[in-house]
Amino acid sequence: MARVLTPRAEDFPRWYQDLIAKAELADNGPVRGTMVIRPAGYAIWERIQSEMDDRIKAAGAQNAYFPLFIPEAYLHREAQHVEGFSPELAVVTHGGGKQLAEPIVVRPTSETVIGEFMAKWISSYRDLPLLLNQWANVVRWELRPRIFLRTSEFLWQEGHTAHADEADARAYARKILHEAYEDHMVSVLAIPVVVGLKTARERFAGATYTYTLEAMMGDGKALQMGTSHELGQNFARAFDITYTSAAGAVEHAWTTSWGSSTRMLGGLIMCHGDDNGLRVPPRLAPVQAYVMVVKEGVGDEAAALCERLREAGVRVALDDRTDTPFGRRAVDAELKGYPVRVEVGPRDLAAGNVVLVRRTDGSKTPTPVGEVVSAVLAALSADQKALYDEALKLRLERTVEVSTVEDAIAASATGWAKVPWSAVGIEGEAKANAEGVTVRCLTRADGSVPDSEDEPELVAYLGRAY
Amino acid sequence: MARVLTPRAEDFPRWYQDLIAKAELADNGPVRGTMVIRPAGYAIWERIQSEMDDRIKAAGAQNAYFPLFIPEAYLHREAQHVEGFSPELAVVTHGGGKQLAEPIVVRPTSETVIGEFMAKWISSYRDLPLLLNQWANVVRWELRPRIFLRTSEFLWQEGHTAHADEADARAYARKILHEAYEDHMVSVLAIPVVVGLKTARERFAGATYTYTLEAMMGDGKALQMGTSHELGQNFARAFDITYTSAAGAVEHAWTTSWGSSTRMLGGLIMCHGDDNGLRVPPRLAPVQAYVMVVKEGVGDEAAALCERLREAGVRVALDDRTDTPFGRRAVDAELKGYPVRVEVGPRDLAAGNVVLVRRTDGSKTPTPVGEVVSAVLAALSADQKALYDEALKLRLERTVEVSTVEDAIAASATGWAKVPWSAVGIEGEAKANAEGVTVRCLTRADGSVPDSEDEPELVAYLGRAY
Repeated sequence: MARVLTPRAEDFPRWYQDLIAKAELADNGPVRGTMVIRPAGYAIWERIQSEMDDRIKAAGAQNAYFPLFIPEAYLHREAQHVEGFSPELAVVTHGGGKQLAEPIVVRPTSETVIGEFMAKWISSYRDLPLLLNQWANVVRWELRPRIFLRTSEFLWQEGHTAHADEADARAYARKILHEAYEDHMVSVLAIPVVVGLKTARERFAGATYTYTLEAMMGDGKALQMGTSHELGQNFARAFDITYTSAAGAVEHAWTTSWGSSTRMLGGLIMCHGDDNGLRVPPRLAPVQAYVMVVKEGVGDEAAALCERLREAGVRVALDDRTDTPFGRRAVDAELKGYPVRVEVGPRDLAAGNVVLVRRTDGSKTPTPVGEVVSAVLAALSADQKALYDEALKLRLERTVEVSTVEDAIAASATGWAKVPWSAVGIEGEAKANAEGVTVRCLTRADGSVPDSEDEPELVAYLGRAY
Repeated sequence: MARVLTPRAEDFPRWYQDLIAKAELADNGPVRGTMVIRPAGYAIWERIQSEMDDRIKAAGAQNAYFPLFIPEAYLHREAQHVEGFSPELAVVTHGGGKQLAEPIVVRPTSETVIGEFMAKWISSYRDLPLLLNQWANVVRWELRPRIFLRTSEFLWQEGHTAHADEADARAYARKILHEAYEDHMVSVLAIPVVVGLKTARERFAGATYTYTLEAMMGDGKALQMGTSHELGQNFARAFDITYTSAAGAVEHAWTTSWGSSTRMLGGLIMCHGDDNGLRVPPRLAPVQAYVMVVKEGVGDEAAALCERLREAGVRVALDDRTDTPFGRRAVDAELKGYPVRVEVGPRDLAAGNVVLVRRTDGSKTPTPVGEVVSAVLAALSADQKALYDEALKLRLERTVEVSTVEDAIAASATGWAKVPWSAVGIEGEAKANAEGVTVRCLTRADGSVPDSEDEPELVAYLGRAY
């Protein structure tokens, strides 16, 4: 069989690009750094959205929509925020055929404009917590764009909440971190994540604490899959978000923000993809079972099989394009990563069988027609777990425990290093950064998320990152 | 009871603004013409999206996502298109801290950028039809913005398809018109629409034919609720969308586009709203039954009732905020337009009853607790129809048949006029336009949609419009 993709071991970035093109997931847009998400990629994004949206709503947040355009002056109200985002802004200077009196920025994130409205809507402690989320596009000018990972425009959800005190804000930032993000990534995307605290150097511009979920990609590098921020009272002061407490005092609120984006699609590809293409975890997959008519003459049987699978709750697609060579269709199905392929051919069918092909391990099993539904359900359930286990195994194998920054930098050539944070510190972090290695996050020794980087005996994860 | 809204009869535009503010549906954004869609408004939009998305997918189109930013040069490739949209463009001139070599426009609609990719993706007749849709924000600079109706940024879906011949393109533009748009508007939004053909003057910039769905608002004016366009080969020529036919010849494709937007929310308000607030059709409503604890002490009974309603498939919300006066909560429920209110109070409950309040006609019916579920289901079903019937009755009452343009202009003071198109023509249309009256659409005498404005015996609908 001709080689379809550049093998990962040969050139991982090239393999990533090839896969995105050949699986028809996305394309580069005409304006540098933008992307077109094609139907095969967008269908996966819709499933990611739907699962994430359910979790965000279960956590009590309500969806809303705030404007794309933000007065440039808003960004200047929070000093760190404007410093962090200024280099990435797209600026609108003309509207309706005229030069604008004041320049407008295309939102890079919405803390500022949402802060303005929180200030309008909140007056009493009874209005708190205010829990908002929006699904939107944002723009951050990228000099070195890479599809799904760093694009000038991307799609995401951004949550923004206001609370009466710091403890409530912290609890909610962590609730989203674990109940929405971690649960989604682990149980839907089948991606193991290390959940921890960012160092001061890696914090979101304007945050007091940033929590993160870090995943290891197939080449041993890290991808930040999502972040949740405590913003302290920084934005509440900048936008005058105040409330009257039960005792009658006027207080500033405490706010949080948290985001996850189309970057997760990049993580999905780089975590689960293999040299034949994408592998989509069954629980996520828009198409779980891909039923293929091998040759003309068995279309009715294939259609009946689809119907039975559909009735059993399986998301099914039928491929009856017998005018296209079967080999080409099979290669395409591998590329797109459908979890299970059911090949319906006249010869097998004469013996009462179809062939069940599992994308995860490539196994091909002749299966009696009457047992197909239960075999597919069993495969979907097993392969959801198998993909997670495989990714976790890689991460454990490629993570080494070391005791110095120098050794951590060396280990980052192939994976991650776990180092005592006390052996790194601000100086060691700068040294690592100079070598292209970053502190991905800090955790406690038991893996739980610390309250601050000053806690004793913290573990630092170091690695190279996308 | 204090008056909550300006009555419609006194000042319809003011009533509309009041309602949007007091029902907390939306707010004006800080950049002129932009809007914030608040949770109560966005929840309705999510339901509109979900119902529309189902219909679009059932019609065979796949969702994708194309970039927000379009090279300005793209718009210039189709002469009518650029002429139509130039006055409304927002232009990005700076990105990443630098002036851009070429200006970029924020998409006002995406025919151009999608045309560019159709050209890349289509090569053979086997690739056709190509049926795409996207949910996105678009920007059209508005000098006289009005929330939901005309805003500088709005949310919509825009479908874009390519076909092998004109007949197939036409059939698909009409399939969306009827099976997605008309069906959604009639059966979900409960808004009667006149479906017809736009005149040449009212056509989309770059289209050969534009089909429209027009609804009458509570003040007798028209609102264009959605449009579907045949684009002929205009964009196929401009973007070189060609395919090789089965016979081996290289041909230009025929394309369509169609859109429906957050404007439908404006239509919903102005079609069904009354002097007490919004009335949301039950099938659309995010909250169908609003269960209110009148006074403390009956919370458990109310919660149990919610659970029973939920089990019966009713979308329910519980209001147990007994620290807020009941009257205020009831006024708020009227404003928000929940179809059915179930008031659970200790006195009624002692007699085995709750009070069922229907938003459509304001009726209050003591109902035995055991019969609440069936009574709610019956009310939801009846009121979906009642709202449609009421809107249709208004339209029929306020539509007059006349035989001259002068009479049509006069009739437009209170509603619509039906006039023979032969009595209007291009000259009559210009005369009406000068008076602020437009030809909303053309239909055949039997109400069906004509193929061209040159068919004999067409009926023109004239009126004032939003």
